[in-house]
Amino acid sequence: ITQKMGSCSSQSCQSCFFEYETERMIVVKSKVVGSVFRLIQFLILVYVIGYVCVVQKSYQETDSVISSVTTKVKGTGFTNTSDLGARVWDVADYNIPPQGDSSFFVLTNMIVTPNQTQSTCPELPNQSTICMSDSDCLEGSNDVRGNGIQTGLCMNYKETVKTCEVLSWCPLEIDINLPEHALLAAAEDFTVLIKNSVTYPKFNFHKRNILPDVNSSYLKQCEFNRKTDPYCPIFRLKDMVSEAEEDFQTMAIRGGVLGIMIDWSCDLDWPEHHCGPKYSFRRLDNKIPENNVAPGYNFRFAKYYKTTDGRETRTLIKAYGILFDVIVFGTAGKFNMVPTIVNLGAALTFLSLVNAVCNWFLLTCTKRRDYYSKHKFTYLDNTDDNAGESVSY
Amino acid sequence: ITQKMGSCSSQSCQSCFFEYETERMIVVKSKVVGSVFRLIQFLILVYVIGYVCVVQKSYQETDSVISSVTTKVKGTGFTNTSDLGARVWDVADYNIPPQGDSSFFVLTNMIVTPNQTQSTCPELPNQSTICMSDSDCLEGSNDVRGNGIQTGLCMNYKETVKTCEVLSWCPLEIDINLPEHALLAAAEDFTVLIKNSVTYPKFNFHKRNILPDVNSSYLKQCEFNRKTDPYCPIFRLKDMVSEAEEDFQTMAIRGGVLGIMIDWSCDLDWPEHHCGPKYSFRRLDNKIPENNVAPGYNFRFAKYYKTTDGRETRTLIKAYGILFDVIVFGTAGKFNMVPTIVNLGAALTFLSLVNAVCNWFLLTCTKRRDYYSKHKFTYLDNTDDNAGESVSY
Amino acid sequence: ITQKMGSCSSQSCQSCFFEYETERMIVVKSKVVGSVFRLIQFLILVYVIGYVCVVQKSYQETDSVISSVTTKVKGTGFTNTSDLGARVWDVADYNIPPQGDSSFFVLTNMIVTPNQTQSTCPELPNQSTICMSDSDCLEGSNDVRGNGIQTGLCMNYKETVKTCEVLSWCPLEIDINLPEHALLAAAEDFTVLIKNSVTYPKFNFHKRNILPDVNSSYLKQCEFNRKTDPYCPIFRLKDMVSEAEEDFQTMAIRGGVLGIMIDWSCDLDWPEHHCGPKYSFRRLDNKIPENNVAPGYNFRFAKYYKTTDGRETRTLIKAYGILFDVIVFGTAGKFNMVPTIVNLGAALTFLSLVNAVCNWFLLTCTKRRDYYSKHKFTYLDNTDDNAGESVSY
Repeated sequence: ITQKMGSCSSQSCQSCFFEYETERMIVVKSKVVGSVFRLIQFLILVYVIGYVCVVQKSYQETDSVISSVTTKVKGTGFTNTSDLGARVWDVADYNIPPQGDSSFFVLTNMIVTPNQTQSTCPELPNQSTICMSDSDCLEGSNDVRGNGIQTGLCMNYKETVKTCEVLSWCPLEIDINLPEHALLAAAEDFTVLIKNSVTYPKFNFHKRNILPDVNSSYLKQCEFNRKTDPYCPIFRLKDMVSEAEEDFQTMAIRGGVLGIMIDWSCDLDWPEHHCGPKYSFRRLDNKIPENNVAPGYNFRFAKYYKTTDGRETRTLIKAYGILFDVIVFGTAGKFNMVPTIVNLGAALTFLSLVNAVCNWFLLTCTKRRDYYSKHKFTYLDNTDDNAGESVSY
Repeated sequence: ITQKMGSCSSQSCQSCFFEYETERMIVVKSKVVGSVFRLIQFLILVYVIGYVCVVQKSYQETDSVISSVTTKVKGTGFTNTSDLGARVWDVADYNIPPQGDSSFFVLTNMIVTPNQTQSTCPELPNQSTICMSDSDCLEGSNDVRGNGIQTGLCMNYKETVKTCEVLSWCPLEIDINLPEHALLAAAEDFTVLIKNSVTYPKFNFHKRNILPDVNSSYLKQCEFNRKTDPYCPIFRLKDMVSEAEEDFQTMAIRGGVLGIMIDWSCDLDWPEHHCGPKYSFRRLDNKIPENNVAPGYNFRFAKYYKTTDGRETRTLIKAYGILFDVIVFGTAGKFNMVPTIVNLGAALTFLSLVNAVCNWFLLTCTKRRDYYSKHKFTYLDNTDDNAGESVSY
Repeated sequence: ITQKMGSCSSQSCQSCFFEYETERMIVVKSKVVGSVFRLIQFLILVYVIGYVCVVQKSYQETDSVISSVTTKVKGTGFTNTSDLGARVWDVADYNIPPQGDSSFFVLTNMIVTPNQTQSTCPELPNQSTICMSDSDCLEGSNDVRGNGIQTGLCMNYKETVKTCEVLSWCPLEIDINLPEHALLAAAEDFTVLIKNSVTYPKFNFHKRNILPDVNSSYLKQCEFNRKTDPYCPIFRLKDMVSEAEEDFQTMAIRGGVLGIMIDWSCDLDWPEHHCGPKYSFRRLDNKIPENNVAPGYNFRFAKYYKTTDGRETRTLIKAYGILFDVIVFGTAGKFNMVPTIVNLGAALTFLSLVNAVCNWFLLTCTKRRDYYSKHKFTYLDNTDDNAGESVSY
């Protein structure tokens, strides 16, 4: 394409259409130069085939995974506390929300405040709520870190401490005395079934984490184990936390967030059964106490009741537990012409650098460089218009 | 760039800065060679323009969609069972959770166990729970597949069957007798409004699935239909299930997961109104019974009540139904210099292959190949230092 | 590579292996042509370095972010309505669902329908429900836009209006009288703590939006401010709505969806502390009233109670409020050989275009074009087999 433009402009287009131009070459028969030339060519070919094609698979078009996850937790736990008495917890009690989508929560510890009603009670004592008399309290004041609307009265919180009274759900929750051992310690033996269905829309590829070659009876009794059962979709909670290098009972006290990562990276040039889920587990919340606000994971929810006289009461539960977050990711690659052409083309460009290097070697490092140079270059002098003589060939 | 390096090294840099080197060419006036040359050039141009540019749009930079979805289900159903009596179900009853985010659940079938309390009752009979005497039961034992904590007693389950007693929410749920016809069969006529807002952050492009050119009155009465109303955001549940080639009433019995895929793939070089949502529907859970654990989709939740004497009771509901999962995906492309340069450059590299092919044709297949070869190549003999003679030109 | 193929085919392979071919060049000493040549070379180099490398960072491999989000809302509000009396709302009341995942809802306005029971009552009057006598009502009819199952009776709705009676949760909700000022106006002062943990799996890069260099005491009292506290993860609701250029009190009446976008785009060739979250806020639902069905954001949920005689009653709440949707996105780039080679290679291809332009300039625009042309081209005539003479050199 390069040469054509120059010559065609000075001729009629029709005749030049069937002309073919090609460079005049000199052929150097030299083992040294030839070896250098072949060596560099070889290195570039090794790079193209080895790195670009084999390692990076640059001949593939890629697509990101689209995924749908449902989960189902199994197991029962038993607690015996002064507040609640002996009590069995089943999945409808500890799994909140119950739907089982890609993130599910298992309650492991809690602070229960039963029989709250809309009424007035003295605030929890802290710097801004302790008062000496009613004049220290501002009626209608509503602190974002407080528990309600101040009524303007100063009341006895304990015998020695007076605090401003608030209108709120009373009695107030006292969340300082978190049980030091997780109440629902038995949660470590609960299991969860994860059903994951993935799609690579560009390749019209669909697959599930329950592989087609496992049967129903295996699925009823298996448990995930990285070595023996890497494709079993049923996971014991404690095993997952251990894989993330955490201790379940420690984590259960204040709660936390555990990522269940499912990697669906696949090379779709291989048969479909080579494409399977790879599970890994990682704690996602911050354990480091220094820069940690609200460590662990907890949230408050309430169960609402009505008394016989129609008044609303509620049981407030500050629920600590482990939030399991199923994160599905992956990229699939499949042979496609465009990236192949692009990456091959770009690599070929580097073959032209071979010539640059060899020319430099030929005209600088060889003994007979002047002889080569004389044949390679024809100097045209700009100031002289009488052609022939000035040409140094 | 190639040629420069060779010659500049043997001259002063300043003078060579304004030198221009260009290849010496031979021009072959041959219809055969010219035709071959032009034909190959044409094929490569067709490939570049046709495949790279038109089909693959390789001149575009791409971005992945970011999306926000809210949903709202409408409709009421009626059931008449021995447990619950005649009862009307509205959206607050059957839509769990009620928030309407990107995945929503419509209850279609259920097993209700009312009036459960924390107490003791004999376990459901199976291999590991059937007992002959108290000695077969282990006090405090807690099987992950059981329903509670064994008390150590062996009790009559039926007249002929004895099972170990457990502390649990009693009476236990008997989930074998799933209604054979979905209770809330009327759910097939429910409709859902899907509001979807997408962003392509790289292109600062925002759009909603409620297109700007439809008006409020149309939206109040329309219903999605692939042919007549492809942009109506209100979907009848049965239509969606049918589009996924499933039968609503069959799916409603044991539940399932239905993917509502919204494809926002767009070519943003066209005006904005060409970019619209494309809906498709696919069942995401596994129908094949062979390798299917916990087929369908269900979860348990409970409504908690307090009796007048302050004891907690609950109604446990094993809810079967269809989980609708709105999955938004898509890639937008827009002209950008970098991919254009990269892909065009790579394609141009292949134009240089034309020369390789034509040279081979010229020097091998033509009648006058020796004549052409003689002019194209100048052989320099390595062993001879007297220049002129050895040159074969 | 191009030249080799031609000559090798006519020789023995072994001897040609150590041959090196290089083009014969003419060197034009011309300030004009040289300047044009250098200028174009310079422009392409500026493009390669400036645009491809600096602006587009094409030497980088990229990866998409994977993210996990938890949120926690703080604050209490006070309402005083005829339905509910004086009442304090805390997080367990207004935050639905309570779990605090990547999208959380804050209730700001509501229509409460207490003491609903399964019973019969006249439908809300509209075109299809108003009746004159029982014959206008169809027993068992169930309109998707109605509230229940018609009993076939025509009842007094008001003194002057008769409507068909339905079996439903009665009394029916009347959702026309939405309070004109948001009930929970105090919600604007609530704060939310957003904990976000991101991963770039390809680069094994993990980070949290609570940066390692902030300490616990700062986090306890800080509030996000784009100028003074850009990395504080605690946000005042009103500030977020203002940043999205909306008015909180207006939005609170009918609800809406607010996107909290966290951009984690990072250049991982820089030290890790340069990679931080960038927050932005945008309203995601449609404000334009013309093509808006069900404007704002609301959903219905119910609290279920049991009366002393065992009948179920419920309080239906149509909840209006702001759904905050935390959307995390971003692409990280890191130096990688493959894209570098590809993009550099493609750019280098364009350097070969320099020659095309310069040749055209040399052979068309210079005074001595015939002289240059004579030396550059050697014309071989196809019809003449006597070599030497026909060559125009």
